Amino acid sequence: MTGAFIVFEGGDRTGKSTQVGRLQAWLQGRGIEPVMTREPGGTELGQTLRRLVLDPASGDVDHRAEALMYAADKAQHVHEVIRPALAAGRVVVCDRYVDSMIAYQGAGRNLALGEVSDIAWWAVGGLRPDLTILLDANPDDAVSIKQDKDRLESAGLDFHRRVRQHFLDLAAERPGEYFVMKALQGRDSMAASIAARVEPLLG
Amino acid sequence: MTGAFIVFEGGDRTGKSTQVGRLQAWLQGRGIEPVMTREPGGTELGQTLRRLVLDPASGDVDHRAEALMYAADKAQHVHEVIRPALAAGRVVVCDRYVDSMIAYQGAGRNLALGEVSDIAWWAVGGLRPDLTILLDANPDDAVSIKQDKDRLESAGLDFHRRVRQHFLDLAAERPGEYFVMKALQGRDSMAASIAARVEPLLG
Repeated sequence: MTGAFIVFEGGDRTGKSTQVGRLQAWLQGRGIEPVMTREPGGTELGQTLRRLVLDPASGDVDHRAEALMYAADKAQHVHEVIRPALAAGRVVVCDRYVDSMIAYQGAGRNLALGEVSDIAWWAVGGLRPDLTILLDANPDDAVSIKQDKDRLESAGLDFHRRVRQHFLDLAAERPGEYFVMKALQGRDSMAASIAARVEPLLG
Repeated sequence: MTGAFIVFEGGDRTGKSTQVGRLQAWLQGRGIEPVMTREPGGTELGQTLRRLVLDPASGDVDHRAEALMYAADKAQHVHEVIRPALAAGRVVVCDRYVDSMIAYQGAGRNLALGEVSDIAWWAVGGLRPDLTILLDANPDDAVSIKQDKDRLESAGLDFHRRVRQHFLDLAAERPGEYFVMKALQGRDSMAASIAARVEPLLG
């Protein structure tokens, strides 16, 4: 048995949850029961840390403290869930991983991308996905589809544009690992393309 | 007004709490009301993080997750307590700081010292103490004084010997900042030596 570690990345409203579910169903159809997990919050400790970051009672949480707590979430998740599953030969499908932390912290906080990257990769002990599926969409399009352009003011759109660019940059740095897929197309054709890319990984 | 940032470091049972209290009293005697604080747990968030690390309900906390949570404690502490106090010209006396994290995590966990150091210093944004007072004692002596040698088995003593050596190494790396003081001497003479070393920092 050889496990496989598959990660979904992408901005909000790119149809990621749908495709995560479709890949799960496709794997199950082939007799494979994947370990479905996510970051942040893939462990009890991680959920507590996430609540702490978001809890108004935590006060004005420092940006570095926030990044470190998300990194701790990742460390625990890899230790408790991902590594044991891979060691047991399981297929692991993870909704967001290290690159989401880099893209979101780098876009939203005044932190150096390289430093956040070093900390996130240290947290997970350098464990790389076998495949990262990036669902890429122009945030302006993603927003117009949901017809909630009003709610996201222009500052919000700028933030999502930076997140998108960070993801594309990370994909360009690791082309062998990344599968960049145009989002907001037909669900079936997206699911089929993803399945075709995953298939060779399944021993 | 110019603030001063004074840190106490050292192993357990070196009389650190006593000397922290003596320095506070000495400063007050000179009309200075210092900000007395500590790590870990110098903020609400930090106390919650510390409880989380120690809580059996957190399960088997990964060593990297633990280090990252202690680093988050430091980030929040510097952001919420230390920097604002220094900016207001206050004298800050902190019981343990970055070097305790390096010495204890490096001695007790299978983590590379240089990596833990990088993360801890990143957490605090590189804020260095003006003075670090290291109370240094041979752990064997510290234990025999407390007559609880039985409780600390030899593995425990090895751990405390490694912690001590890490502190001495860190002091040797930053001689201008460190004041290394032989612990377990008379309290009054220790307090007097520390006061003499602190005095030039008080504008």
